[in-house]
Amino acid sequence: MIKAGIMGATGYAGEQLAWFLYNHPMAEVEFYNSHNYAGVPYNEVYNNFYSFIEDICVDMETAISKLSNIDVLFIALPHGKAFEITEKALALGVKVIDLGADFRLNSKEVYEAWYGVNHEGEHLLENAVYGLTELNREAIKHCSLLANPGCYPTATILALTPLLKNKLIDVNSIIVDAKSGVSGAGRSASIRSLFTECNESIKAYGVAGHRHTPEIEQELSKAADENLVISFTPHLVPMNRGILSTCYGSLKKAVTTEELLELYRDFYKDNFFVKIINGLPETRWVRGSNLCHIGIKVDTRTKRVVVLSAIDNLIKGAAGQAVQNMNVMFGLEETTGLKLIAMAP
Amino acid sequence: MIKAGIMGATGYAGEQLAWFLYNHPMAEVEFYNSHNYAGVPYNEVYNNFYSFIEDICVDMETAISKLSNIDVLFIALPHGKAFEITEKALALGVKVIDLGADFRLNSKEVYEAWYGVNHEGEHLLENAVYGLTELNREAIKHCSLLANPGCYPTATILALTPLLKNKLIDVNSIIVDAKSGVSGAGRSASIRSLFTECNESIKAYGVAGHRHTPEIEQELSKAADENLVISFTPHLVPMNRGILSTCYGSLKKAVTTEELLELYRDFYKDNFFVKIINGLPETRWVRGSNLCHIGIKVDTRTKRVVVLSAIDNLIKGAAGQAVQNMNVMFGLEETTGLKLIAMAP
Amino acid sequence: MIKAGIMGATGYAGEQLAWFLYNHPMAEVEFYNSHNYAGVPYNEVYNNFYSFIEDICVDMETAISKLSNIDVLFIALPHGKAFEITEKALALGVKVIDLGADFRLNSKEVYEAWYGVNHEGEHLLENAVYGLTELNREAIKHCSLLANPGCYPTATILALTPLLKNKLIDVNSIIVDAKSGVSGAGRSASIRSLFTECNESIKAYGVAGHRHTPEIEQELSKAADENLVISFTPHLVPMNRGILSTCYGSLKKAVTTEELLELYRDFYKDNFFVKIINGLPETRWVRGSNLCHIGIKVDTRTKRVVVLSAIDNLIKGAAGQAVQNMNVMFGLEETTGLKLIAMAP
Amino acid sequence: MIKAGIMGATGYAGEQLAWFLYNHPMAEVEFYNSHNYAGVPYNEVYNNFYSFIEDICVDMETAISKLSNIDVLFIALPHGKAFEITEKALALGVKVIDLGADFRLNSKEVYEAWYGVNHEGEHLLENAVYGLTELNREAIKHCSLLANPGCYPTATILALTPLLKNKLIDVNSIIVDAKSGVSGAGRSASIRSLFTECNESIKAYGVAGHRHTPEIEQELSKAADENLVISFTPHLVPMNRGILSTCYGSLKKAVTTEELLELYRDFYKDNFFVKIINGLPETRWVRGSNLCHIGIKVDTRTKRVVVLSAIDNLIKGAAGQAVQNMNVMFGLEETTGLKLIAMAP
Repeated sequence: MIKAGIMGATGYAGEQLAWFLYNHPMAEVEFYNSHNYAGVPYNEVYNNFYSFIEDICVDMETAISKLSNIDVLFIALPHGKAFEITEKALALGVKVIDLGADFRLNSKEVYEAWYGVNHEGEHLLENAVYGLTELNREAIKHCSLLANPGCYPTATILALTPLLKNKLIDVNSIIVDAKSGVSGAGRSASIRSLFTECNESIKAYGVAGHRHTPEIEQELSKAADENLVISFTPHLVPMNRGILSTCYGSLKKAVTTEELLELYRDFYKDNFFVKIINGLPETRWVRGSNLCHIGIKVDTRTKRVVVLSAIDNLIKGAAGQAVQNMNVMFGLEETTGLKLIAMAP
Repeated sequence: MIKAGIMGATGYAGEQLAWFLYNHPMAEVEFYNSHNYAGVPYNEVYNNFYSFIEDICVDMETAISKLSNIDVLFIALPHGKAFEITEKALALGVKVIDLGADFRLNSKEVYEAWYGVNHEGEHLLENAVYGLTELNREAIKHCSLLANPGCYPTATILALTPLLKNKLIDVNSIIVDAKSGVSGAGRSASIRSLFTECNESIKAYGVAGHRHTPEIEQELSKAADENLVISFTPHLVPMNRGILSTCYGSLKKAVTTEELLELYRDFYKDNFFVKIINGLPETRWVRGSNLCHIGIKVDTRTKRVVVLSAIDNLIKGAAGQAVQNMNVMFGLEETTGLKLIAMAP
Repeated sequence: MIKAGIMGATGYAGEQLAWFLYNHPMAEVEFYNSHNYAGVPYNEVYNNFYSFIEDICVDMETAISKLSNIDVLFIALPHGKAFEITEKALALGVKVIDLGADFRLNSKEVYEAWYGVNHEGEHLLENAVYGLTELNREAIKHCSLLANPGCYPTATILALTPLLKNKLIDVNSIIVDAKSGVSGAGRSASIRSLFTECNESIKAYGVAGHRHTPEIEQELSKAADENLVISFTPHLVPMNRGILSTCYGSLKKAVTTEELLELYRDFYKDNFFVKIINGLPETRWVRGSNLCHIGIKVDTRTKRVVVLSAIDNLIKGAAGQAVQNMNVMFGLEETTGLKLIAMAP
Repeated sequence: MIKAGIMGATGYAGEQLAWFLYNHPMAEVEFYNSHNYAGVPYNEVYNNFYSFIEDICVDMETAISKLSNIDVLFIALPHGKAFEITEKALALGVKVIDLGADFRLNSKEVYEAWYGVNHEGEHLLENAVYGLTELNREAIKHCSLLANPGCYPTATILALTPLLKNKLIDVNSIIVDAKSGVSGAGRSASIRSLFTECNESIKAYGVAGHRHTPEIEQELSKAADENLVISFTPHLVPMNRGILSTCYGSLKKAVTTEELLELYRDFYKDNFFVKIINGLPETRWVRGSNLCHIGIKVDTRTKRVVVLSAIDNLIKGAAGQAVQNMNVMFGLEETTGLKLIAMAP
C-alpha cells in the first residue's frame, strides 16, 4: 500500500483527495493536515465521511513529524506555502504532489511577478515536473516533485494542444473564455463567495490578469514551439463544480470540423480520460469524474475554430489528476481508483 | 454474472441503475429499454456514458423478447405500466425489481383509490415483498417480485420505525414534512419542472393527498402493530437531488435525545447504509451515496421528538436501494457496488 | 419629506431599506450607517445603486451626530446592538423602527434566556409596539418605538392568527415547519453560508431552539388568549429569498377548506398585502413584493388543517414591513412605495 | 392613457410586459393574448398577479377583433408568427412593437437563411425600425413598426458600438462570448430546459450558428460603416435571468482603459439606462432593472480590449426595452415606468 499524507485536507481539493484515496485499492491516508481544524475529527468537517474516516486533523508540526511514515505527500495549500514542507519531504525520499501553484511555472521571476510572493524553492524548480498527465506521462513516471496543473490550465491546454502541435492556428490569435463553478474559489469565509452573492448571477473576474494565464501560456508555448500570449477571461458561474473552457483560434488553413475531430481522436487515442465527443460538452456530463470532454466546431464564416472542453474542476482540475499522477509515479495502472462515470443529474 | 434488463432506462431512476450496474462487479446490463428513445444510442441521451455504454435503447417488444436472457428485470416505468411485463418475466423465472408503485401497496383497493388506475396484477400482490432492505431483509432474500420503496417512504419509514416499534410516540400524532429535489419529478417535459419555474422558489404540493401517504402508513402501521394515519406534506426544493424528511411525534413518556440516539444506533447497528449522526442531517452529506443519515432531537418544551432523515432520492430512494435489494436477492454481499461516499461539495 | 437614517445599511435588510426608500415618494435617506464599510461609497458595496446613490457610509459616531436631522431611524443591526442608539434617538423625538429582535419580546427574561445577552433597554419595552402591521395597526399609528417582526414570525403569525382567534384548533397542537432562503443568514463572511456549502442541499437548523420561537409563541398566545407552545423547525433552502411556513394544527371541530378560505378572506379583507389564494403558495409568486400569500388545506383523514404562507423574507419579513410601518406611523397611505408585484421568473 | 394589447402574454417576455404595464402611469393593457391559455385567467398562469390582474387570456381571433381598441400592440410570439397580425394592426393605425425576430433583419434573404421560414412581410421591412433605443432614438420617435432587439444583440451592440464608431478595433477581430440565464429559452415544455437538466451545469449552444449572429453583425456593420462578421458563442448558465456579454477586439492603436472609460461615458452620457462602471459588471446588479452595465479592460499584453456588458435579458433584453421604445414612440419621458433599481440579492 502507498502511504499518503494530505496537507490542507479540509479545503475542497483536499476533501476530494480524501474521497478518492479512501476508495483507492493501493493507497491509504496516513494523516489529514489542516490549519484551521487541527484537533477536530475530519468527519465533523465533512459529514459525508461520518463512520468512514475516524482520523483527527493534525497541525503542520505533527504532519512534518509523520513525513517519514509516508510514500507520497499531497499538498493542497495556498500558494507560497508549499516550499518548506516540500523540501523536507523530498529530503526524506517522499514523493511530492503539489496541487498549488508553487512549482508549476518554470521561471521564478514569472512566478513572483504574477503571484506577488517570493519563490523560496527555486532550486527545486528544475526537477519539478508539470503534471498534465496526458501530455507529460513519461516525465511524470520518473519524477519526485510533481506540480499538479491548475483547473483552468488543465481544461485549456488539453483543448488547444493538438491545434498548436499541428500548427493549425495562428499562435497569437488565441482567446480563452472560461467558466467555473464556485468551488474554484475554495472553502474560506468570504463575502464574495456567499450563496447570496453568487447565486443568480454571472461575472468575469481577473480580466487580463488571472494567475493561470502564465501557466497556460508556458505550456501552450511548448506545444507551439514558440512563445505566445493569450487572452484569458475566467468567469464565475452559480454552480458548485465544473469548468467549461471556450477556446478560439484563427485557422491558418481551411479544415473541417470532421477533420479536426479525427485529428483530436488520434492525438488522444491512448488516453482514457480525454473524450472527443461529437457535439458540445456540458460540465454536467463530466461532474464527479476525472474525464475531460472536448467538442470542436469550425466556423467557416470567420475562419476560426472553437474548441470547448469540460472538466470537473475539483477532479481532473485538481484531486483526480493528482491521483492519476500518483498512479503514474508509482507504476500503477493510470486509471486505478478513478474510473468513475459522471453523476447525473 | 447476473444479467439484468432495465425498463425505462432513460428516466432518472433508470439512468442511476445504469450507473450503478456499469460498475457492479457481479452484474451486467443486457438491454436498456426506453419508450421515447428506442433506437437511439443510450449515450446520446446521457452523454456521461459516452464511450462507456454503446448500447442502443430498445422498445418494449424487443425488451420482452430478451427476457429469457436475463436473471433480473428492473422496472422504472410510470405506475400502472409494470403489470404485464412483470407477469411475463416471472413466468420465465426472471426476478423482478419494480421501482414504481404497482406492487408496494398490499391492497388493490387502496392502490386504486390513490393512483386512480386499475390494478391488473392483484394475484401477484401476495408474493410481492416490500423492499425496504433494512426492515425486510429476510423476506427479500427469498422473493421473486420486489416492490422497491418510494423515495419519501424510504426516508420516512427509516426515521420513524424505531420509535413505533418501541411504542415511544402516540401513533396518531405523526406529522411528516418532507422536502425533495426536482429529480423526484422525473424527466418528462413539463412546464412546472422547468428550471425557471423551480429555481429560486419553494412550494408544497399534494398536501393531504400525495400518493406516498398510504405507502408510509402501511409500513408504519406494521411497525406500530396498529393502524395509523399521518399528515404528510412534500415540498419541492430547487436542487437536483436529495430528500429531507422532518418527522414529528408526541412522546408518550419522557426520554432524552441521547437515549434515543442510543436506541436508534442499536436498532440499526447491523445496517451499513443507515447512519445515526450526532447533529442534524443535510442532504449534501448523502448525495451520491446509498446512505441514510438520521438525526434526532427531543423537544422537552413540547414533549415532541423531531427525527430528521436525509437520503439521495435517486439512490437510497430508488436505484441504489434497488441494487441493494438485487444483492440480497442473489446472495451477494449487500454493499456490493454501493460503497460510495457522498460527493461534496 | 420624511427624513430617515439607516443603521446597518450594508446588511441585506439595510440594502432593501435603501432600495425601498430610494423610490419612496415621501421619504429620503439622510445617512447610511455601516460598521464594516464606513468611509466607503454605498454603491461600491451594492453596485445596483451605481449612479443612483452617491452617499458614503458613515460610522456609528457620525450616525449619532446626525440623529437630530432625521424623523425616523431604521435599525438593522445584530441583536443586542439597538439599545443605546434607540434611547438616543427617542430622546431627540426621532421615531425608531428596529428590524432586530431587541424590542420584540415583552419580557426581558425571555429575551435574555433565548438571546443570551443582557437586555439593556427594559424601560423601553412597555412602549415598544410589535409591528405586525395587519394585526396591530392601531397601536402602530401612535408609537415611537416599533419592533419590526422577524421573518419567520411574520409568515407564521399571519398564517395562524385567524384559526386561533376563532378557537378552531387545539392550541398545543401547533407545528410550524418553515423554510427560508439563504439571505436570512445575513451578509457576513462565514463558511456555512458559502455558495458551495448551501447549494444543492437542504437542512434544518435550530431544531427546538430557534430564537424566533418565543416571538411566535408570544403573539400566537395573544391571538389565542391563552399561553401556548409550538414546535418550530426552520430549514435552509438553496435560494436567495423567500420563506414558506407550513403550519399544522388539530381542528377542534369539522370544518371545510372552503369555510376556512372564506373565514381568512374575511379576516384579512382590509389588508392589501395579505392574499388568501385558492391553491398552494410558492415563494416565487411573492418574491420582490411586500405580499403574503396564504393557502389552506383541511385534511379530513387526520382532522388537521395545514396553512401555508409565503413571503419574501427581506421584504414582508424585514424591510418592506418596516416601510409599511413607517407609512402607518407617519399617517401615510399604508401601501406608499410598496405596491410592487413579485418579479417572476 | 395608451391602450395596449399583448400577443403571447403568457411567455416570459409577455409576462414582463404585463408586469411593467400594470404599473405604468400612462398605459394600460386592453387584452392578454395566449395560444395555450386562452380562456384561462391570466393570474392563474402567473400567480404573482393574483388579485391584481383579473383578465382572461384571449385567443388570436379575439385579439384581432380588439385591435381597433388599442394604440399599441406588443407581439411576443415565436418567430414567423408576427407577419399577419402586424399587417392588420398597422392597417388600423395601431403602432406595433415586435419583440420577436421577424422585422429585425433588413434583408428577407438573410432572415430566411438563418430562421428557415419564409418571410411573409417583406414589404413591411423598409419601414421597420430597429429598436435599440440608445442608438436609434430619432427613428424610433416616428416609427409605426418597431423591431425590438434580441437579448444578446442588445448587450453586445451596446458594448461594441463606441469602439467601432471610433474605429478603434479591427472589425474582423471581434469575438463575442455571451452567457444567458435559462429564461432566454422561453416557457415551453422541453426536456432540455428542465431544472434537472440545466442546474449545476454550463454549456455552449448554437456555436457558429446562432440566429442572433446576423442581427449583431448587421448593426455592428452600420456602426463600423463596413461589413463585418463576428464569432458569437452563447452559453446557458444555471440562473433565471441575466446576460453577460464578454466581447473581445484587437486594438488598432494603443489606448488605455481609462481613455476608453471616458470615451464610453461621453458616448452614452445622455442615456439613463447605460452605465459605464469602474469595475466589472455582474448580472445581479442589473437584474430586475432596464439598465445595462458596461465594464472595460485593455490588455496591453495582447493588445486586445475586453468589453463586458450585463443586462437583464427579460427587461433591457426584451420587455423593458419594448416599454422604453413605447415611451419614445408616444412622446413620453423615456424612463416612464422603468426607473427600477436592480433587486439584490
